[in-house]
Amino acid sequence: MKVHVGPVALPELEAAVVAAGAELSSAADASALVWFGGSPEQFAELDHPALEWVQLPSAGIESWVSADVLRDGVTFTSAAGTYAQTVAEHTLGLMLAGARQMHQMARETSWSKPEEQRSVFGSTVGIIGAGGIGRALIDLLRPFGVRVLAVNRSGKPVDGAAATWRSDDAEGVAELLAESDFVIIAAPATAETSKLIDAAALSRMKPGSWLVNVARGSLVDTDALVEALDAGRIGGAALDVTDPEPLPDGHPLFQHPRAIISPHAANPQSLLIPALARRVEENVRRRIAGEPLLGLVDRTAGY
Amino acid sequence: MKVHVGPVALPELEAAVVAAGAELSSAADASALVWFGGSPEQFAELDHPALEWVQLPSAGIESWVSADVLRDGVTFTSAAGTYAQTVAEHTLGLMLAGARQMHQMARETSWSKPEEQRSVFGSTVGIIGAGGIGRALIDLLRPFGVRVLAVNRSGKPVDGAAATWRSDDAEGVAELLAESDFVIIAAPATAETSKLIDAAALSRMKPGSWLVNVARGSLVDTDALVEALDAGRIGGAALDVTDPEPLPDGHPLFQHPRAIISPHAANPQSLLIPALARRVEENVRRRIAGEPLLGLVDRTAGY
Repeated sequence: MKVHVGPVALPELEAAVVAAGAELSSAADASALVWFGGSPEQFAELDHPALEWVQLPSAGIESWVSADVLRDGVTFTSAAGTYAQTVAEHTLGLMLAGARQMHQMARETSWSKPEEQRSVFGSTVGIIGAGGIGRALIDLLRPFGVRVLAVNRSGKPVDGAAATWRSDDAEGVAELLAESDFVIIAAPATAETSKLIDAAALSRMKPGSWLVNVARGSLVDTDALVEALDAGRIGGAALDVTDPEPLPDGHPLFQHPRAIISPHAANPQSLLIPALARRVEENVRRRIAGEPLLGLVDRTAGY
Repeated sequence: MKVHVGPVALPELEAAVVAAGAELSSAADASALVWFGGSPEQFAELDHPALEWVQLPSAGIESWVSADVLRDGVTFTSAAGTYAQTVAEHTLGLMLAGARQMHQMARETSWSKPEEQRSVFGSTVGIIGAGGIGRALIDLLRPFGVRVLAVNRSGKPVDGAAATWRSDDAEGVAELLAESDFVIIAAPATAETSKLIDAAALSRMKPGSWLVNVARGSLVDTDALVEALDAGRIGGAALDVTDPEPLPDGHPLFQHPRAIISPHAANPQSLLIPALARRVEENVRRRIAGEPLLGLVDRTAGY
C-alpha cells in the first residue's frame, strides 16, 4: 500500500506508516492519505480518483464536515479515542485545580488562603458525552470513590457509571446537572448539542459545582456562563474550549475568580504527535490486513 | 472517660467525643484533652496532674516539640495520617497543574498556548518521606501507570514502589532525584531533613522535572530553589509550604513562571474538620476499649 503524509510531511507519522509495512509515496500515487497540517479547504489539492482512505489528525472533525469535503468513495477515519487519556488527564487536572482554587493561588502576590476549597473524594461527577474521554476519566477517578452519572447518545450503560441517560432524555440530563459536583462536557459538537449548557441548564446546576468543558466551545452559552459565574451561582468553570475561540484578549473569563481558561491545550502538540503516530501505525496495519479501521467517520452523524 | 475539647470548643469534635461513648467535661475534670485552637504555649493552662492523654489536631507537631510541652506522664497523639487523602489529592492537583502549566494559563489575559506541557502518564514519581501521604498518593497515581521510587526512614519497602531506600542512604536519594519526573517531598521536618533539597540536590534533578513540597518549608533551601527555577534547571516547583512561611509579599516565587505557591492549603479547614472529627471519634473509642491509639507521638523522634 502506498501512503502519502501531507500537506505537511511529519517525520513521526512517516515513520509510523513505514513501521506498519506500507510504502511512502507522492500524493498522486497514494491510495491512502495521512492528513497533517493545512486546512480542509486544501483537501482538493491532494485528492484524486484513486484515493481510497484518508486518516484525519483530530478527534473532532466538524471543520471537515462544514467544508463539505468528505466525499463519497473515500473512507475517512478520525483520531477519535487516540487522545482520550491525554484529555482525561487534563480534565482531572482542571477538576482538581478548580476544586482546590489553584487558579486563584497562581494569581496571588501575597500569602492568602483561598476560600471554598472542595474535594473530588466522594463527589458526584456528571459526564455529558461519555465516550472515549469519559471512559478514560472514569479510570482516573476510580481511586476517588466518586459517583459517576453519564449521558451519551445511545443511553447504553457506561461502565463505572451509577446511571446513564440518552442525550435526548431531558429529564435525565436535568438530573445529572442537579446532582453533580463536577459537570464534564465531552460530547461532540453537533446541531443538537449547540448551547446545550445555556442559562436554564446553568440554573439547574448544584450551587458550588464546577463546569469543565473539554469538548467544543459551541456546547456552552458563553454569555450565560459569565452571568452565572459573576452571580456565584456555580462554583466555577474550567474551559479548554470557548465560543468564540480564541477568546478575545481581555475577555472577562480571563483571570475571572471563578474561571480557568485552558487555551485548547488538553491535547498539546508535544503529547499529541506520539499518540497520533500510534494510531496511524495501527490503522495502516489494519488497512493492509483488511481489518476494520479505528475512528471510522459517520458522515451522516458528523463525527 | 471524661474529655475536654479546647482551648477552643469545636462542636464537631465535641460531637465526635460523645459519639465514641465518652463524656464532655471541664478541663480540670478531664483525663483526656482534645486540643483545638490556641498555641502550644497555652498548654500549661489546661494541663493538670490527672491528665493522661492529649489528642493534637495537626499531623506535624514540631511547634509542640520546640515549645517543649510534651511532658512525661501524658500520652500525646498527633493527627498524622488523618489528612493523608486530602493532602494526596492536593499533591496530585499540583502535579497535574504543573505538568500542564495551568498556573501559567490562570495568569493569562489572552489566548496563548503554554510551552513544555508534560504528562503524568508513564512518568517516574519519587516520594521522599513515603508515609501516609505517600501511600495515599500512590493509590491516586495507580491509573497513570507511573513508576514510584520511595525514600523513608526505615527503608522498609513501600507498597507499589519499584524501589525504597532509607533516608540516610545518600546514593539512594541521589538516584531518586536523578530518575524522577516528579519529586514529592512528604517527610517530617527534623534536624536531619532540614534543607534536604539544597543546591546540590537540585542539580541532581532531571531537567524538566517538578518538585512538589507538601511537607514543611524547612526541607527545601528557598534561595537555591529560586536560582534553579530562574536558570530553568528544573521544570518547576509547586510549594504548599515555604521557608520563610508565610512567604513575604512580592517574593519572586509568587507568579514565577515555573512556580505554584499554594499557601499551606493542602489540608484546608473545610476539609480538615470532618477528617479530624473522624480521628477523634476513633481514638476516643480506642482509648475506652483499651486499644492502641492512632498517631502516637514519638517524643524522641519529634513526630
